[in-house]
Amino acid sequence: MPTYTPPLRDMQFVMHEVFKVTDEFKAMPQHAEVDVDTINAVIEEAGKFASEVIFPLNISGDTEGCVLDKATHEVKTPTGFKEAYDKYVEGGWAALSCDPAYGGQGLPFVLNQCLYEMMNSANQAWTMYPGLSHGAYEALHAHGTDEQKKLYLPKLTSGEWTGTMCLTEPHCGTDLGLLRTKAEPQADGTYKLTGNKIFISAGEHSMASNIVHLVLARLPDAPKGSKGISLFVVPKFKVNADGSLGERNPIYCTGLEHKMGIHGNATAQIAIDGAIGTLVGQPNKGLAAMFVMMNAARLGVGNQSLGLTEVAFQNALAYAKDRIQMRSLSGTKAKDKEADPIIVHPDVRKMLLTAKAYAEGARALQIYCTLLLDKVHSHPDEKVRAESEELVALLTPIVKAFITDNGHIATNHCMQVFGGHGFIKEWGMEQYVRDNRINMIYEGTNTVQSLDLLGRKILGNNGATLKKLGKLIGKLVEEEGVNEKMAEFINPIAMLGDQMTKFTTEIGFKGMQNPDEVGAAAVDYLRVAGHLVFGYLFARMAQVALREIAAGNTDPFYGAKLQTARFYFAKLFPETATLMRTARAGSKVLMDTDLALA
Amino acid sequence: MPTYTPPLRDMQFVMHEVFKVTDEFKAMPQHAEVDVDTINAVIEEAGKFASEVIFPLNISGDTEGCVLDKATHEVKTPTGFKEAYDKYVEGGWAALSCDPAYGGQGLPFVLNQCLYEMMNSANQAWTMYPGLSHGAYEALHAHGTDEQKKLYLPKLTSGEWTGTMCLTEPHCGTDLGLLRTKAEPQADGTYKLTGNKIFISAGEHSMASNIVHLVLARLPDAPKGSKGISLFVVPKFKVNADGSLGERNPIYCTGLEHKMGIHGNATAQIAIDGAIGTLVGQPNKGLAAMFVMMNAARLGVGNQSLGLTEVAFQNALAYAKDRIQMRSLSGTKAKDKEADPIIVHPDVRKMLLTAKAYAEGARALQIYCTLLLDKVHSHPDEKVRAESEELVALLTPIVKAFITDNGHIATNHCMQVFGGHGFIKEWGMEQYVRDNRINMIYEGTNTVQSLDLLGRKILGNNGATLKKLGKLIGKLVEEEGVNEKMAEFINPIAMLGDQMTKFTTEIGFKGMQNPDEVGAAAVDYLRVAGHLVFGYLFARMAQVALREIAAGNTDPFYGAKLQTARFYFAKLFPETATLMRTARAGSKVLMDTDLALA
Repeated sequence: MPTYTPPLRDMQFVMHEVFKVTDEFKAMPQHAEVDVDTINAVIEEAGKFASEVIFPLNISGDTEGCVLDKATHEVKTPTGFKEAYDKYVEGGWAALSCDPAYGGQGLPFVLNQCLYEMMNSANQAWTMYPGLSHGAYEALHAHGTDEQKKLYLPKLTSGEWTGTMCLTEPHCGTDLGLLRTKAEPQADGTYKLTGNKIFISAGEHSMASNIVHLVLARLPDAPKGSKGISLFVVPKFKVNADGSLGERNPIYCTGLEHKMGIHGNATAQIAIDGAIGTLVGQPNKGLAAMFVMMNAARLGVGNQSLGLTEVAFQNALAYAKDRIQMRSLSGTKAKDKEADPIIVHPDVRKMLLTAKAYAEGARALQIYCTLLLDKVHSHPDEKVRAESEELVALLTPIVKAFITDNGHIATNHCMQVFGGHGFIKEWGMEQYVRDNRINMIYEGTNTVQSLDLLGRKILGNNGATLKKLGKLIGKLVEEEGVNEKMAEFINPIAMLGDQMTKFTTEIGFKGMQNPDEVGAAAVDYLRVAGHLVFGYLFARMAQVALREIAAGNTDPFYGAKLQTARFYFAKLFPETATLMRTARAGSKVLMDTDLALA
Repeated sequence: MPTYTPPLRDMQFVMHEVFKVTDEFKAMPQHAEVDVDTINAVIEEAGKFASEVIFPLNISGDTEGCVLDKATHEVKTPTGFKEAYDKYVEGGWAALSCDPAYGGQGLPFVLNQCLYEMMNSANQAWTMYPGLSHGAYEALHAHGTDEQKKLYLPKLTSGEWTGTMCLTEPHCGTDLGLLRTKAEPQADGTYKLTGNKIFISAGEHSMASNIVHLVLARLPDAPKGSKGISLFVVPKFKVNADGSLGERNPIYCTGLEHKMGIHGNATAQIAIDGAIGTLVGQPNKGLAAMFVMMNAARLGVGNQSLGLTEVAFQNALAYAKDRIQMRSLSGTKAKDKEADPIIVHPDVRKMLLTAKAYAEGARALQIYCTLLLDKVHSHPDEKVRAESEELVALLTPIVKAFITDNGHIATNHCMQVFGGHGFIKEWGMEQYVRDNRINMIYEGTNTVQSLDLLGRKILGNNGATLKKLGKLIGKLVEEEGVNEKMAEFINPIAMLGDQMTKFTTEIGFKGMQNPDEVGAAAVDYLRVAGHLVFGYLFARMAQVALREIAAGNTDPFYGAKLQTARFYFAKLFPETATLMRTARAGSKVLMDTDLALA
């Protein structure tokens, strides 16, 4: 049976020692009072909720799955899921970083980030129910009318109701321009929606008294393609002006998908059969409004894989210390035992350290990004807000794709550490692999993320945003360039930073002649960018660790952090060499292959 | 619903045009009469059996799984499995490459290889029932007494009975030296066995009238560790001297594992409660006898991943041509459609071509290895036999680990091509990922394979065997070194061959000082060696294709083969650059990490 210990120490290190978040919060009137003790107390409680309430439901939720009653269109979630959700609501967790104007606690996103990392470690399938709600909350908060906000936000904030994103249809996922769901204006200003949606996470359940569906659809006169899509809020039960529930809206779950993983979450096929909704934001601007939700969701998906990487690592580490098998190549280590624990074997250590480094790099990146989001939402200086927004936009596809791909590598390694037992459900490791697998696909496949990064975010403004990231790195390189102890961490990122500048210009030029060159390079490019960012973050973490050690701090945490950083630069970072080479191999060997793909 | 078309053309290309197997067979008296037409007829029929009989049972077998009746210890396999097995036996497929002395057809292993590739594509879980039998057949054929052979081999040859390998126990898998199952000699020369085994594939079922378990156990006076293990044959039903079935032997299935994949195969927990068996081979030499079976099984596991890679590729290709979504970056391709088929996108093509190249490389390697096995078993020249044996021993860990790791990459890519639909069971893609996942673990994890390759097969004889492989490659380089058209295929392997020589010496020296250096480098090393071998095989395939095209052959197959080879060298082979770098990073960053792994 797996176990889970919330990684509070590492979260505190990243928040307080690396990014000094409370110093940053002092500049934000809304968060000026948030101090270290408050943060630590909140994440400690959050960790208890995650490990004590939802973690015990992870394997049983996977085994039971969700069941649809076709007659009533109601879905039964796995045993215990509703009771855990009640506790989540009672604990006020849904409201953690919501707007106080609607009953929220108004705490920084950084805290929500830590809460969600731990909930994802504990139970990704369960966590998707509140997770989707939070996305719906954000879209309505940003684009809803006052009336919509008044009607929906307090209940989403409290967690009394949950939310969904209804985008995908059977014939379109990536290409939402093709979508067919229709919205006809009614005399009273509402809209009547008709259509079919699929892959709706948390799409139906009885954990909350209402479900607030955010639905993409077309108005009758809408232009073709993605410029003719509008966003609507369509509640499962209509909501009266006083907030009480009215009649059932005909937006029904007609089927649940049989999936590789996240069995505890109801992935619903939804038939919208004349359901009444209201318009969110401007007509035909639905995609833009939805992107508020989508960007949050993409960071959230990275966080899911961070959570799975962490919990998989913890369990593989425990197993590697406990399981004895063979002797160390360099001589017997456990003389009193029949064999040595498998952690003595170099490759077992490599698999464990890969997971550890990917978890720690991801945690630093996720917290960094949410701190930027806090600035976007709460910093008084417009320039800081704009710059933070630009940087988080650049980092979002990296968070989504790099962390989920790393999660795939890491959960598979951790499963491999268990040998044959890793393949057996009761040990819990294969579930982490299966659950993580969707993270590479949904909210925009990782290929789509790479095109977003290279095509839009980087080449789209001629590398201007990339230069800003380069400046951040350049600053660290300057600061530490003469520090011999930092050389092993600084040199690789300084060199890769230079290479990437050239590399980007090169692809930019080739792409102007042939846009397929961008498509051919994008996936490799994103991984190189991911390593540049992880490299930067590991260097910053090593900087803090070295300073603490130099100052006489004897907490072994710092030595461990240095070891992990060294491992990262020696064994993971070097894949950039191959990635740049294969990206440079260009599009011809992919596109001139009609015979091979005949 | 997935489809499957046997890749007969590519098999024929590899057998007849690249390796000219019938020329080789002419030197082997047993196979001298096996001609091209016979081979083609056999694989065509084998393809029909695979695609028409067992492929339709693949998804249903996964969904149903196996069910144990705890009262009777009998296992019910998925619907249709038994009927399909009956057809397999009726068709004489079990006997294909078995010894005519026991009713076999005596055909080359190369044909069995093709049969099994296709059966694995069609249904890996089902194929493991006959697959394990074949391993038991080989171990008894090599090490059994005349009486054992007479008793068991005819029934294993016909397929009337199936076989298993009972090695693993709850506390030991890799480290069989720890095993505890006991065998006590009886007055009549038999042995009474007691113990518990786990992870026994095809361990119980009612598809055949008897199951021949090959069991590793310890004699009362056995030395400790792996030098005290003996091999026994323990039938489910005792066998009378006339071959008829006697009473039930107390070797019972007490549980079935709940697994990530291969649900259709019964992975049994087995209690041996005083079951009667006979000794196979010499006392305390059981591991050596078992290795006959194990080596065959390792090649068989590579073949499983080849099969899954091929079928995953076929279905991803079909989907990529059919599914329309977004427009090509370089301009609309399907003007009459709402969007372009996703095969226009460079990264989709990259994922498809990765699977294709890994399937074709694996097929060439598997056929090459089984041709070597045919030489080992049937060549009259002792030197040829010995050299072939040495080479196949070197290649076995590469086949097992490189092909199964590639299968992991390829099946995941093919699943990814399907976007969200890839995660849904009905499409069949996620099953290929789950089924393949065990291939990286069982029959010796891929880490164990890498230590076998680098530690035993390469450094164990100071690189002598590696030099022989180097000579083969050197011969091709010499032959084609002046052919400009071959340069793109020859240069990379010539360069990598040189690098590997240095690289091997370097690790050898470091390893003499610190054996953990070997353990730290082994996994990376094996992948480099894998690419050297695949590179060599792609170069040989390209050589044939170029010759055919030069001779005016207009079959588009040759152009396609060249495109795949070019893709392979441009996009997959270059990972060797990183692998050598990370291997060279050594063991220190893995071993000096006690704090990080505290």
